[in-house]
Amino acid sequence: MGVAAALVTKLVNVRYLSGFTGSNAALLVAADGDDRLATDGRYTEQAAAESPDLRVVVARQCAVALVESMGTDGPLAFEAQDVSVEAHDGLMASAPPSVELVRLGHLVEELRRVKDDDELALLREACAIGDRALAELLPWLRPGRTEREVGRRLEDLMLDHGGDGRAFDTIVATGPHSSIPHHQPTDRPLARGDLLKLDFGSLYRGYHADMTRTVVLGEPADWQRDLYALVARSQAAGRAAVAVGAAESAVDRAAREVVEEAGLGESFPHGLGHGVGLEIHESPLLAASSTGTLALGIPLTIEPGVYLPGRGGVRIEDTVVVTAGEPELLTTTTKELLVVG
Amino acid sequence: MGVAAALVTKLVNVRYLSGFTGSNAALLVAADGDDRLATDGRYTEQAAAESPDLRVVVARQCAVALVESMGTDGPLAFEAQDVSVEAHDGLMASAPPSVELVRLGHLVEELRRVKDDDELALLREACAIGDRALAELLPWLRPGRTEREVGRRLEDLMLDHGGDGRAFDTIVATGPHSSIPHHQPTDRPLARGDLLKLDFGSLYRGYHADMTRTVVLGEPADWQRDLYALVARSQAAGRAAVAVGAAESAVDRAAREVVEEAGLGESFPHGLGHGVGLEIHESPLLAASSTGTLALGIPLTIEPGVYLPGRGGVRIEDTVVVTAGEPELLTTTTKELLVVG
Repeated sequence: MGVAAALVTKLVNVRYLSGFTGSNAALLVAADGDDRLATDGRYTEQAAAESPDLRVVVARQCAVALVESMGTDGPLAFEAQDVSVEAHDGLMASAPPSVELVRLGHLVEELRRVKDDDELALLREACAIGDRALAELLPWLRPGRTEREVGRRLEDLMLDHGGDGRAFDTIVATGPHSSIPHHQPTDRPLARGDLLKLDFGSLYRGYHADMTRTVVLGEPADWQRDLYALVARSQAAGRAAVAVGAAESAVDRAAREVVEEAGLGESFPHGLGHGVGLEIHESPLLAASSTGTLALGIPLTIEPGVYLPGRGGVRIEDTVVVTAGEPELLTTTTKELLVVG
Repeated sequence: MGVAAALVTKLVNVRYLSGFTGSNAALLVAADGDDRLATDGRYTEQAAAESPDLRVVVARQCAVALVESMGTDGPLAFEAQDVSVEAHDGLMASAPPSVELVRLGHLVEELRRVKDDDELALLREACAIGDRALAELLPWLRPGRTEREVGRRLEDLMLDHGGDGRAFDTIVATGPHSSIPHHQPTDRPLARGDLLKLDFGSLYRGYHADMTRTVVLGEPADWQRDLYALVARSQAAGRAAVAVGAAESAVDRAAREVVEEAGLGESFPHGLGHGVGLEIHESPLLAASSTGTLALGIPLTIEPGVYLPGRGGVRIEDTVVVTAGEPELLTTTTKELLVVG
């Protein structure tokens, strides 16, 4: 049985389908072609400009207004991953009695996996902004500067280079902090001999870049060189496994095997990577539990990490795109171990 | 009938009750006192440090893990405003057969309305950071600088003055843009004769400041002086109505009446204000439809605005706290019409 209409409430999905970028919206995609975008009075002009082909319903409660406006009978599909139990009550109460609510599933998220040329162009620029910012940051790094100062400088540089803001909270982790996968910058100063892990990215017209580089302040110790070389090998193996038709779990496996063979599998406690686009984390997920396969035009991160508590950690992350041949590398900063400061 | 336990999943509510600030968590508050906090492996150390009195369950799917761990029978209350229909399915599938899921309501949000002394101290500092940043910004403003440059400078200054980041997307709206209530900064340069509306605030240890000032570049025109004076009178009336026991709707009414008497009620299209705290918008809402009353220790914004499309708009916003006497003003920048540039 088909549905009479689909109610899209997840904001990035609304943006993907309609082009509308406001912060309060819902979209009704109707089988009879009578699609409607709802937003509130703050965004009336913006909706007309961004979604000129859509009828716009102005209301504070966007989803409820769209459901109330339904003339058609039959099932209405909704995004169960986005609609809260409480909001679902509201939809049930507003829908005409002949309208039954059914699940749309993650249909729009699935559509969003493969990016078109315009989207890839935005992702390329988002990643290039990060490369340019990092190139300017590296010569500025030296012992004494704090994690917080480094994070702020990096975010400033991304804005200087054309970014619209940060894609996520910048991670700057120095010395023992580098063994914490998701560390928030503190007032700890960089010190000679530290590993310094930088995980960051720019937002650019709605699209999210993601890159990690780990550098060392001053001459690296042997264990730092070895750890870095191991993670770099793992990362290269992960990138080499990215191909049309490759199982997501197999890409994770390819990179993880390298770390496991070194006896450090337990020290790589997260998945290998994730899709990026209108969200910083989106489908696919590269992990042992993943069941999908990769297709042409999917951008994703490859980011193995090995973390040795109390000593330090290394993560190396690129954003790449699945192509017919080798994956396209969007984050082009070198992956040689860089000595700074 | 009482409940056996409450499952708190809304992150700010978890933070409020437990002190834990990580980005993935859930909290089980059990009638038998066996409370548990769940978070994933990235945050194990942080959870022990921030919530030393709680048993910590380490799991990626926090809510599901807590429900699975329930030994007790009886109803489990959950936050229907936070749990998606899809996540609710997962909880139902994980709960022991003897556990029934019931609604907790907005209980924690209600608890959060009234702030204690520690919370008020953080809000005071968050607001003071905004005041200091604005004082430094104003002499720097001049024709030619763009909305985007002004926004970036203001956000930089808030960091300089001790902020942890912005509490929400900074609004910088100049000339005709000032009539758009929620305008995103563009490359439009400030011009002599423009109204310039700045709506901004700092985040400080999880607490959100919120303030709006509208200034004019160069000598104000008569209509600008009149519009400003009207909004200032409305704002003063709103502040004067803030008191213990005052109806939320009556505070909105007090400010709105002033604008309506000037024949401009239609040009004030939003509520008068809202609570601030761990969220930028939280209970109470000051609007005609509100049904609650104010209590001692509730911080809230008072922010009437009048917007004349194509010409310009004025909004004046303070964050204040309900006291036994006059409300305490947290945003202390003058509300005289400032001439800059």
